[in-house]
Amino acid sequence: MAVDQLSETFSALADPTRRAILSRLSSGEATVGELAEPFPMSLQAVSKHLDVLERAGLVARGRRARWRPVRLTGRPLEDATRWLETYRRFWEASFDRLDGHLRTIQEGAPRE
Amino acid sequence: MAVDQLSETFSALADPTRRAILSRLSSGEATVGELAEPFPMSLQAVSKHLDVLERAGLVARGRRARWRPVRLTGRPLEDATRWLETYRRFWEASFDRLDGHLRTIQEGAPRE
Repeated sequence: MAVDQLSETFSALADPTRRAILSRLSSGEATVGELAEPFPMSLQAVSKHLDVLERAGLVARGRRARWRPVRLTGRPLEDATRWLETYRRFWEASFDRLDGHLRTIQEGAPRE
Repeated sequence: MAVDQLSETFSALADPTRRAILSRLSSGEATVGELAEPFPMSLQAVSKHLDVLERAGLVARGRRARWRPVRLTGRPLEDATRWLETYRRFWEASFDRLDGHLRTIQEGAPRE
């Protein structure tokens, strides 16, 4: 079964190492070796994570240079953010309720 | 190994049925039966998806009523959105570049 793009994006983001790789790439492109450096895992393990990120379209690898630098590609992150933003009112509403409740307690006013 | 909250959230979102369930719940709480209705799958299969969503803290089930209505809880979605928003400049930058390039072509100006 073909996996839809949004599922692929969220699935790729569901791992702390892969998120750390994206975070590193947000300050500029890097080689696989550079990306692997901070992690207590083999170059091969990091390469596998990069494969997942590349399949999800979250990173791209240079074709020209022999060291094939990896860079971040923003588009799937944008789609994921847009999907999540449609739920913004839910968390904002929860905070509003909590905020209102706390104010009521502080002011000693009767609760609605 | 304990899975961090953000990974659990993204993992729960990496499925079109689970996202459709959240979308349905965004218009109000519902019973498992109501949630299962639009899907060509068993009640048990929908229940499993709900378990994943509940473990990730994305939905909560009523304790009082016998039919235990399911409702959306926004907090994990907020954390996920905040994480994604730190990458906003990447997709905005790509569009800026594309936009600038298209304008250059339309105006017949020499490319930078």
